Amino acid sequence: MGKTISEKIFSQAAGKDVRAGEYVFARIDRAMIHDITGPLAIKAFKEIAGEDGKVWDSSRIIIAFDHQVPADSVIAAENHKMLRRFAEEQGILNYDVYEGIAHQVMVEKGHVLPGMVVVGADSHTCMYGALGAFATGIGSTDMGAVFALGKLWFRVPETIRFEINGSLPRRVYSKDVILKIIGTIGADGANYKAAEFAGSAVERMSMSQRFTMTNMAIEMGAKTGIIEPDRETERYLKKAGVEGNLEEWEWLRSDEDAEYFRKLGMDVSDLEPQVAVPHKVDNVVPVSEVEGTKADQVFIGSCTNGRYEDLEIAAEILKGEKVARGTRLIVIPASRAEYMKALREGLIDVFVEAGAIVEFPSCGPCMGGSFGLIASGEVSVSTSNRNFIGRQGSPEGRVYLVSPATAAATAIYGEITDPRKV
Amino acid sequence: MGKTISEKIFSQAAGKDVRAGEYVFARIDRAMIHDITGPLAIKAFKEIAGEDGKVWDSSRIIIAFDHQVPADSVIAAENHKMLRRFAEEQGILNYDVYEGIAHQVMVEKGHVLPGMVVVGADSHTCMYGALGAFATGIGSTDMGAVFALGKLWFRVPETIRFEINGSLPRRVYSKDVILKIIGTIGADGANYKAAEFAGSAVERMSMSQRFTMTNMAIEMGAKTGIIEPDRETERYLKKAGVEGNLEEWEWLRSDEDAEYFRKLGMDVSDLEPQVAVPHKVDNVVPVSEVEGTKADQVFIGSCTNGRYEDLEIAAEILKGEKVARGTRLIVIPASRAEYMKALREGLIDVFVEAGAIVEFPSCGPCMGGSFGLIASGEVSVSTSNRNFIGRQGSPEGRVYLVSPATAAATAIYGEITDPRKV
Repeated sequence: MGKTISEKIFSQAAGKDVRAGEYVFARIDRAMIHDITGPLAIKAFKEIAGEDGKVWDSSRIIIAFDHQVPADSVIAAENHKMLRRFAEEQGILNYDVYEGIAHQVMVEKGHVLPGMVVVGADSHTCMYGALGAFATGIGSTDMGAVFALGKLWFRVPETIRFEINGSLPRRVYSKDVILKIIGTIGADGANYKAAEFAGSAVERMSMSQRFTMTNMAIEMGAKTGIIEPDRETERYLKKAGVEGNLEEWEWLRSDEDAEYFRKLGMDVSDLEPQVAVPHKVDNVVPVSEVEGTKADQVFIGSCTNGRYEDLEIAAEILKGEKVARGTRLIVIPASRAEYMKALREGLIDVFVEAGAIVEFPSCGPCMGGSFGLIASGEVSVSTSNRNFIGRQGSPEGRVYLVSPATAAATAIYGEITDPRKV
Repeated sequence: MGKTISEKIFSQAAGKDVRAGEYVFARIDRAMIHDITGPLAIKAFKEIAGEDGKVWDSSRIIIAFDHQVPADSVIAAENHKMLRRFAEEQGILNYDVYEGIAHQVMVEKGHVLPGMVVVGADSHTCMYGALGAFATGIGSTDMGAVFALGKLWFRVPETIRFEINGSLPRRVYSKDVILKIIGTIGADGANYKAAEFAGSAVERMSMSQRFTMTNMAIEMGAKTGIIEPDRETERYLKKAGVEGNLEEWEWLRSDEDAEYFRKLGMDVSDLEPQVAVPHKVDNVVPVSEVEGTKADQVFIGSCTNGRYEDLEIAAEILKGEKVARGTRLIVIPASRAEYMKALREGLIDVFVEAGAIVEFPSCGPCMGGSFGLIASGEVSVSTSNRNFIGRQGSPEGRVYLVSPATAAATAIYGEITDPRKV
């Protein structure tokens, strides 16, 4: 009886052969904290290890500042200062306020390799699974234990395999695919499962498109989103400066005879652009059902859809156009590296010429903390991953989740617009 | 007996011949509110004019969003929404969150002409005086009265004339001149006076450099900073799309036999770069006295020093260099127009390559509200206009005010650095 990629990774991390349903005490390869969750994790760690305790392995921990950058309150500034000091004292790599969103930094700087167990004190840590790692978000207290021990208890998850075939139509993207999946199986449809994405459509996706899918696995309750390594994985990692090649990672393919909790097939060839309407991520409808909804603000960015490729898709639509009067467009690249590429390729020019606000890499309006908040009665059309009540500001505002293409088309017309029509 | 430019402007605005010391009920040519002061001004206006009252002249009012942009709290978002609605109902021009700092927008969009009386609900409204207008900051309640009546009481101010001669040395700028002046006469040295800047050094200054000086007139207590119109004024206004020429504005030259409260002469040929040290703007020392002070954050921007020319000066120093480890550099152009010019000319590239954070036009860290705040014990070296306790975040932080050149040099070395040495 074969194993899924997730079972293989946990077998390695536990040092013994394990299957879904078993509890394991797994070795952690990488642990990430950011400026919101970091202070709590450090507090928990110090309660375990003492004020002068040393982390189990400073080379396996990454700190990144992304939620409140540059510091948007004195409390945030004090948290940053404390985190910098902790990083310095412990010899931990600290990506400061100018580097971008933690998740993007983790993958583009080569911190995540196939086969790793990676934990992050943020729910969208599951994104890294696109690189063939088992990556999952954990609480700050659990992270304190990881800092002390380098290990964490897991129940090896069952896997739902999504076989996604076909060719995505023009102006339909992986964001539309993952929204469709979440809408179909529901916000709790994959609770504590590994969501394994496979099939010809996934194989054709760039790593950037794949990240969008695994990033949102948590939105259907999954413990992780995961994709078996292939040539695209190898290409991406090589660019990230990682040594290694596909042959080394071959063992990570799920076995033909692996046991799955469920297998779901899907053909995307006729998929329409999808929209998650307020106030749940699984309230998903085709764009045609909400076309014409007035948009006060459009946000293109976040760990879900703030990469160069996303910006390129949006810029192609916005080039030579103007943001509608009465609509605000905020564009935020996911990281310094993606920003610089967009700058060099003239994408930032396109956005600014169109009338957009382009902010420096950060989480931005995604979680309604730092800036770009909406007022009561206002609508945000957003490429991010959550549309809960109050997520981007007023609890009386409404958030619609879309692809960068739908967001760009919406910005031009000031109302939710099918990107295939522009 | 002749008149100063300020007396001439008030004589016109009052419809009778007036002199310093007289009280006048002056016609207002332009009135500006922003997103912080606007809601209070509108409340005051409605108390006078009623809920459905109409402003005296909607074409003379400008609303600009700059302090909390994009909205950094739900309250800010609601304020923006309310201001947009007020602008719409009243037919008032509204520069939304994507246009930049109110003061910069006012001058670059041609809203301020020589000879005008301009009031703004912000202390640095005095900046517009560089265009030969009498411009001053007023309280939100006074602004409510202006909205209703189009007029406001003033005591025509006495004038202190600063005769600034000589040639500024390399890497010494108008910011250094105004800091030197404020340091010399003190934070209350020009209380309720018009600070009239003249002399060969001022004549040679670009309008951008002049704005830096008049912007800070309030920091010595002056009611306004003012400069007689000349060819540079004409050139700047032509570019801003203003009809008119120097001949029309000739009457605005202060008469040879005008009576001044005081005349102060200064030669800038040997001026060193100046620094206002914590926690007062008039605590001014030559850079040599504070060289080596560790800088946690450097801020290049604000209505004082966020124009293209300022960015160009900073970029020239930062090109090919890197921001020091342990120092954060935040660059914020003053307006969308200045940002776009910086983008097209490759300045944004230079900053980002150097490791800076470049944010979209806004007041940014200047007043410690929106983002870029400092923690306790941290030092901000800033091109803005105020270094009061807590101005940029923690009351236990310290703010040093400098020119863009000194800021850029400081960013490279991570400590206050004389820009003449780099």
